[in-house]
Amino acid sequence: MKTPFPFSAIVGQAEMKQAMILTAVDPGIGGVLVFGDRGTGKSTAVRALAALLPPIRAVESCPVNSQKTADCPEWAELGSKKIVMRPTPVIDLPLGATEDRVVGALDIERALTRGEKAFEPGLLARANRGYLYIDEVNLLEDHIVDLLLDVAQSGENVVEREGLSIRHPARFVLVGSGNPEEGELRPQLLDRFGLSVEVRSPGDIDERVEVIRRRHAFETDVEAFMQTWEPQDAEVRDTILKARKRLAKIQTPDEILNDCARLCIALGSDGLRGELTLLRTARALAAWQGNRRLTRAHLAAIAPSALSHRLRRDPLDEAGSGARVTRIVSEVLG
Amino acid sequence: MKTPFPFSAIVGQAEMKQAMILTAVDPGIGGVLVFGDRGTGKSTAVRALAALLPPIRAVESCPVNSQKTADCPEWAELGSKKIVMRPTPVIDLPLGATEDRVVGALDIERALTRGEKAFEPGLLARANRGYLYIDEVNLLEDHIVDLLLDVAQSGENVVEREGLSIRHPARFVLVGSGNPEEGELRPQLLDRFGLSVEVRSPGDIDERVEVIRRRHAFETDVEAFMQTWEPQDAEVRDTILKARKRLAKIQTPDEILNDCARLCIALGSDGLRGELTLLRTARALAAWQGNRRLTRAHLAAIAPSALSHRLRRDPLDEAGSGARVTRIVSEVLG
Amino acid sequence: MKTPFPFSAIVGQAEMKQAMILTAVDPGIGGVLVFGDRGTGKSTAVRALAALLPPIRAVESCPVNSQKTADCPEWAELGSKKIVMRPTPVIDLPLGATEDRVVGALDIERALTRGEKAFEPGLLARANRGYLYIDEVNLLEDHIVDLLLDVAQSGENVVEREGLSIRHPARFVLVGSGNPEEGELRPQLLDRFGLSVEVRSPGDIDERVEVIRRRHAFETDVEAFMQTWEPQDAEVRDTILKARKRLAKIQTPDEILNDCARLCIALGSDGLRGELTLLRTARALAAWQGNRRLTRAHLAAIAPSALSHRLRRDPLDEAGSGARVTRIVSEVLG
Amino acid sequence: MKTPFPFSAIVGQAEMKQAMILTAVDPGIGGVLVFGDRGTGKSTAVRALAALLPPIRAVESCPVNSQKTADCPEWAELGSKKIVMRPTPVIDLPLGATEDRVVGALDIERALTRGEKAFEPGLLARANRGYLYIDEVNLLEDHIVDLLLDVAQSGENVVEREGLSIRHPARFVLVGSGNPEEGELRPQLLDRFGLSVEVRSPGDIDERVEVIRRRHAFETDVEAFMQTWEPQDAEVRDTILKARKRLAKIQTPDEILNDCARLCIALGSDGLRGELTLLRTARALAAWQGNRRLTRAHLAAIAPSALSHRLRRDPLDEAGSGARVTRIVSEVLG
Amino acid sequence: MKTPFPFSAIVGQAEMKQAMILTAVDPGIGGVLVFGDRGTGKSTAVRALAALLPPIRAVESCPVNSQKTADCPEWAELGSKKIVMRPTPVIDLPLGATEDRVVGALDIERALTRGEKAFEPGLLARANRGYLYIDEVNLLEDHIVDLLLDVAQSGENVVEREGLSIRHPARFVLVGSGNPEEGELRPQLLDRFGLSVEVRSPGDIDERVEVIRRRHAFETDVEAFMQTWEPQDAEVRDTILKARKRLAKIQTPDEILNDCARLCIALGSDGLRGELTLLRTARALAAWQGNRRLTRAHLAAIAPSALSHRLRRDPLDEAGSGARVTRIVSEVLG
Amino acid sequence: MKTPFPFSAIVGQAEMKQAMILTAVDPGIGGVLVFGDRGTGKSTAVRALAALLPPIRAVESCPVNSQKTADCPEWAELGSKKIVMRPTPVIDLPLGATEDRVVGALDIERALTRGEKAFEPGLLARANRGYLYIDEVNLLEDHIVDLLLDVAQSGENVVEREGLSIRHPARFVLVGSGNPEEGELRPQLLDRFGLSVEVRSPGDIDERVEVIRRRHAFETDVEAFMQTWEPQDAEVRDTILKARKRLAKIQTPDEILNDCARLCIALGSDGLRGELTLLRTARALAAWQGNRRLTRAHLAAIAPSALSHRLRRDPLDEAGSGARVTRIVSEVLG
Repeated sequence: MKTPFPFSAIVGQAEMKQAMILTAVDPGIGGVLVFGDRGTGKSTAVRALAALLPPIRAVESCPVNSQKTADCPEWAELGSKKIVMRPTPVIDLPLGATEDRVVGALDIERALTRGEKAFEPGLLARANRGYLYIDEVNLLEDHIVDLLLDVAQSGENVVEREGLSIRHPARFVLVGSGNPEEGELRPQLLDRFGLSVEVRSPGDIDERVEVIRRRHAFETDVEAFMQTWEPQDAEVRDTILKARKRLAKIQTPDEILNDCARLCIALGSDGLRGELTLLRTARALAAWQGNRRLTRAHLAAIAPSALSHRLRRDPLDEAGSGARVTRIVSEVLG
Repeated sequence: MKTPFPFSAIVGQAEMKQAMILTAVDPGIGGVLVFGDRGTGKSTAVRALAALLPPIRAVESCPVNSQKTADCPEWAELGSKKIVMRPTPVIDLPLGATEDRVVGALDIERALTRGEKAFEPGLLARANRGYLYIDEVNLLEDHIVDLLLDVAQSGENVVEREGLSIRHPARFVLVGSGNPEEGELRPQLLDRFGLSVEVRSPGDIDERVEVIRRRHAFETDVEAFMQTWEPQDAEVRDTILKARKRLAKIQTPDEILNDCARLCIALGSDGLRGELTLLRTARALAAWQGNRRLTRAHLAAIAPSALSHRLRRDPLDEAGSGARVTRIVSEVLG
Repeated sequence: MKTPFPFSAIVGQAEMKQAMILTAVDPGIGGVLVFGDRGTGKSTAVRALAALLPPIRAVESCPVNSQKTADCPEWAELGSKKIVMRPTPVIDLPLGATEDRVVGALDIERALTRGEKAFEPGLLARANRGYLYIDEVNLLEDHIVDLLLDVAQSGENVVEREGLSIRHPARFVLVGSGNPEEGELRPQLLDRFGLSVEVRSPGDIDERVEVIRRRHAFETDVEAFMQTWEPQDAEVRDTILKARKRLAKIQTPDEILNDCARLCIALGSDGLRGELTLLRTARALAAWQGNRRLTRAHLAAIAPSALSHRLRRDPLDEAGSGARVTRIVSEVLG
Repeated sequence: MKTPFPFSAIVGQAEMKQAMILTAVDPGIGGVLVFGDRGTGKSTAVRALAALLPPIRAVESCPVNSQKTADCPEWAELGSKKIVMRPTPVIDLPLGATEDRVVGALDIERALTRGEKAFEPGLLARANRGYLYIDEVNLLEDHIVDLLLDVAQSGENVVEREGLSIRHPARFVLVGSGNPEEGELRPQLLDRFGLSVEVRSPGDIDERVEVIRRRHAFETDVEAFMQTWEPQDAEVRDTILKARKRLAKIQTPDEILNDCARLCIALGSDGLRGELTLLRTARALAAWQGNRRLTRAHLAAIAPSALSHRLRRDPLDEAGSGARVTRIVSEVLG
Repeated sequence: MKTPFPFSAIVGQAEMKQAMILTAVDPGIGGVLVFGDRGTGKSTAVRALAALLPPIRAVESCPVNSQKTADCPEWAELGSKKIVMRPTPVIDLPLGATEDRVVGALDIERALTRGEKAFEPGLLARANRGYLYIDEVNLLEDHIVDLLLDVAQSGENVVEREGLSIRHPARFVLVGSGNPEEGELRPQLLDRFGLSVEVRSPGDIDERVEVIRRRHAFETDVEAFMQTWEPQDAEVRDTILKARKRLAKIQTPDEILNDCARLCIALGSDGLRGELTLLRTARALAAWQGNRRLTRAHLAAIAPSALSHRLRRDPLDEAGSGARVTRIVSEVLG
Repeated sequence: MKTPFPFSAIVGQAEMKQAMILTAVDPGIGGVLVFGDRGTGKSTAVRALAALLPPIRAVESCPVNSQKTADCPEWAELGSKKIVMRPTPVIDLPLGATEDRVVGALDIERALTRGEKAFEPGLLARANRGYLYIDEVNLLEDHIVDLLLDVAQSGENVVEREGLSIRHPARFVLVGSGNPEEGELRPQLLDRFGLSVEVRSPGDIDERVEVIRRRHAFETDVEAFMQTWEPQDAEVRDTILKARKRLAKIQTPDEILNDCARLCIALGSDGLRGELTLLRTARALAAWQGNRRLTRAHLAAIAPSALSHRLRRDPLDEAGSGARVTRIVSEVLG
């Protein structure tokens, strides 16, 4: 309802913006977790991203935004089967959303009026092929977080409740914002997010003034402000589309695979999700930058976002895990 | 039902009264949190404010008080579409209000009698374009506080429950009263209130006697008392209306933006909500005072209300965060 | 169902009896909290008071006992509109009463049979213009206590639940009995009671024997006992009615207002409820005693009941807060 | 269903048997609390008492066993109005009984079939004019214990739930058995029981053998055993009836009232319930023993049962509160 | 569904097998509690016992297996009244069984289709005259354990819920298995079981090999294995039937009653359930062994099972309570 | 919906793969518990196994996959009775599955439309004759884990709830994955799993690179990758079928039974489930390897998986229980 602030007009926060763009290039990277103090514009950025994303092609009446009629779930009552362009779905998980609205539930209305046991899809259906945004992921109940991450990873929503036994595709990028002061997420949950970024209030006075100035301009005359920034947003959108096409063709030399493994062993990251995400994100970066071949520079650029939330805490390392990744990257990759 | 005490007849409590008036000038400032011991007249002041506020223009049957028919939500069954003047809504959130009455819920009556899945709006709908008052915000359940602040900030109520998927505008000023003895609010919640003020029992004996005298007069002969104070209340109301018109035209010199940022950095307030609220409230103050240009004096006057609840506790600073703001204001702004 | 013990036949307990009588003279004083060990006759006294109170004039079918048809709430289906005399309502809040019966709720019967969403008033409606009695207020759930005090203070019951949005007058005197051994009430709750009194088992043997003797006489021959004491109860009732008429005309010299304020400042009582209640109760006492002008003697007599539950605990003052009030009263008022 | 063991055939346990008999003589004494180790025959004794009690005169279809039609509650649908003799009701409160079955509830069947909001009485109605037995009172939920004691003391069941607002007489003797090892009752609850007795496994070998022998005889040939003991049970029943008639005429000299008070002051028992119960029980004992005048001997005999559960714990007094009562009785009464 | 392992083919575990057989001879002994480590065949033994028990004579359609039509409960809708032979019921209490299925509940189906408030019996009805088996009694919720033991002891199921007020016979032997590592039962619960036995993994290698060999043979060719062991199972079954007939005629000399009492006093077992169970079990043993007269040898043989779970823990006695019983038996009985 | 990764293409993890294969050879071995860090491919392996398993022969409409019509449960409404081949069921227990969907429940739809009390089978029915997979068994509620293990062991689902009293076969292999960092399972639960294996991130760089390479190849071109590995998967499937036929004929020399017992005694494993599982798994291994006679080598190979989760923790043995088993195997079996 409110016009979102333009993505390109966000001052600073380069790492967060890049992470979001790369998940738009390759949604297979997995979710993004945005850490940061209160008031650092986390919500603003996600809503801005939503307005920036390229539209998708979908069957008009399909509850899970399928690309062709054949892909629509069998339980859906399809109306119009026309193929339309629609904005990439960016679904908000409001506080207080009940589990039945998240995963879907028995359609009470149809049950009462027609005596049928039909499925009424929830937010996970609507988020298919798009984004699901959770503001303050820390405030969400644990069992809903577990459930969301489980679906996000498998790409499928399996519903076994109220006498229903339903499944449908639910491929989406989970974007969560969190405040480290309000309690940490369990390591098992962290690991399931593809990327993590940290945002901070700018310490630089000019940057802060610029934030206030742009915000003030935006609130004073929304329309003028939007026109000023639309060209820059359009360029980002365009580059994302080009990068998607390029993605499959990026060459991945064997030594790069080797680098991924060496980096993760050196960092002591558990499991293999680190390597796989690092590789995938680096390829998306290469595509975004217009390169044809993956290089060490891509790995180095993206390693902090892809790996820092997978490290074990080191209480003696005051610089934080982001700095640790950077240091070890330069040691391993030279 | 009871006639409220006149706003102008409240003895002392200048900071609280000013904060309330400024949110009437610019509701975008955000909520006001009133801290204070028991028995200091917090509730009295809010109820007095309600009686003082200028009326609004609204579609008669619109459940969210929209200004024109086109703005009424699509789920509403509109009756009369006449444009009427009505008092600014000041909605009370009673203790024991259930979540369904706050956010709205399935209209059981229509579901049973007509077999339709209709939305019955809640208190958040009724509060649109007005005030929502919570006495003893500390006693409210955490998940309802989270929910209210979330809606208050986004200006929109998103309902995903009981098979409903509804949204409607919910722009209101949240006024909460709280007693620091009954437990503190989490810093994340504090930050979401625009302004905070503290009220205390007057220590001065003449002021106390004046309170008792006016209260006694009010209880003895309500009507006479109301007549005595109505002219002063009318003047406040009038000045609010003038200030609203002036607001967009207040000039904001660049050095004032710079002052905002420097002040917040010096205070170490997290995030950028401090600067933005400070600027906004100072502009409202300028409008209220009839000025055309924002000055350092405006910032200085309003800084304690806008910033003191955003500071980290300093256990060595016994003077309290209000005094800290005042001291640093004079250092930074000279 | 059982005949209550006559109010006048209660042995001793002068402070408690006076506090109850004064709330009958001016219900605006607020509730009475009776502290005391088990078995000290707290319940007996409240039930005795109920039988003593003068009747009220009310619309026969009005669910909130309104004095004239015009005052009856709009949601009520009125039957007989005759004006009748009925006993002052003294409503018992039984243990195990559910929240819906306290505040009122959806009338399920009408909902099912007539398909209407009607309100079925609860105990708060029935208590309007009378008393609401809670035995062992400590055993009541916190959220119900909060709710009762909130309604008691605002004089209005606001119901927002189950799709209902109803309000009706609920002006009553809340009488609560409590046992300090079973845990204390929060200071915030204490402050909302107008008066507090403490009852103790008499230590004097003749007084104890008198209690047993009267009780034994009452149980052996109820009727004879009631006849013996009825004249004394009638006199109390009569004096209450006279005092009510006199109340508005009591003169309140300015120096008495000053005394109220000085007393509360000396005692360090938080907020202004102390002064206001002290003044109001002293005026009721003057009316009860047949005086025309408020004096320091009235303040001194009533100060312990009106103020002792508003003081902060002083761990060094072994004499208890009642004694502290008495001491400071004599210092301040001389 | 099983034939209960005859009351007279219980070996030893004189104090418990006397306490039960006295409540049959004067039910106004209040409940009996039976403390004791597991396996000491507490349940057996209560079930035996049930078989022993004299029958009552009641309206055949009255749900609360009223003596005449005029006393039947207004909400009851009466069938036969014949006056019949029926066994004194001894109602068992089974573990797992729900609150609605204890206090009564909305009659769902009538609500559904006839659309009426009728009251279906619960165990408290059935227990009127009789006994209510709770095995292992410690295992009962606190809120049900509070509720039962509240009703037991007021003699009236007030129901405010599910849209019902009903009251009916509920005068019964509450008999509870408890095991001190499974946790103690709160002092406030203890005080509300009229009498308390403690039972122990006999330490004497001949007594134990006698228990086994009688039990074995009972299980081997129930009928023969019942015939053997019926004459003795009949005699007890007969004496109870005579004692009831005599009760009102027992003379109570003033010095006995004085003794009651002195005894309770010496024991430091809180409140006045001690004196009142002591007097009442002593009178029942006098009536049972066929005396016309209350003496110190009656007080002394009954003081341990009536007072020992009302004393504060004395950690230095190893002999237990029963012994303390006995010692002080002999000091005070000489 | 699976063929149970033959009772006679169980290797070792003599004490457990004897305890189970004796409850088949005299169900009045009360329940059996089987303690033991995981994997020691506790469940296997109970299921084997079920297959071994002699059939009972019952009314075909009676929900509580009554022997004659006159004994069937009044609330039951009887179909066929033919007298049939059926296996002794052995009812399994599955984990997750709800309280309504255990005690019985309102028959929703009849309520909805015929508008009648009928009772639908639960597991306790089906277990009447048979066994009720609870695997891992520690995992059951406390309130269900209380309820089961209460019914097991009184032999009657009293239902007061959902507007029902029903009772029916529920005489069954409760067999519970438990693992001491998963937390102990409360002493009050232990005491209500008639017998207790402990099972252990055999420490002897030949015995362990024999277990594996028989188990392996059973799994390889069930039918052949069953045929091998059927004659031995039939002999046990036959001897149980003979013992039941003999039971009433066993002579019990007075000195044996004396021995029972002396033994229990020496062991310090609380209450009298010890003596009564000891006597009853010893008589069953005599009947099982074909004797006509109870002797000390019978007491000695059965004392550990009947008494060891009734002793207080002795932390200095490392040999365990079973050994303590054996030692004191030889001291007392010589 | 997503094509699973081929079983044979999993790099390393030999122990886990072997354990899974052996349960396919003999499902009577019981469940498999897979421990491991996050990201080690636990879920991938189970989904791969599902695709590999040989199909089963089943009645087309049977809700529990019975082999012939006679085996279908009596409560099932059978449609087509054709015998069909279907994939071995591998049922996923999704997070958030409710108990009614796991065990089955009242079929609300039939209850409402036809007034019948019919059973709607749950996941346990669908898993019959197949696998039930629980990802993160630690996150499941305790009472559901208890219930699943209980059913898994007895092979039968007994439902006593909502007025239903139903049983059906539920023989399945339970596969659970767990993360030791998220809290351990109770020893009683561990013991009920047949086998346990631990998976770790490979420490070897070449192995890690191989994982990334295969994963990358799989994601780049699924179809090509599947074709490459299908022959190897087919060979595994084929060998499983051959091993099943061979299984019953494997010869088990007496000294091997002796070895099983000696091994378990030496390891101090509680109960006899250790021996029985060891024997059964070793026989499955022999069948898988094409041998006709069980040897010590088979025992030694399988002992760590079958026994290590049954040992008591030894805090002094840092090598872990797997190493302890290996050491003692070599001592005992030489």
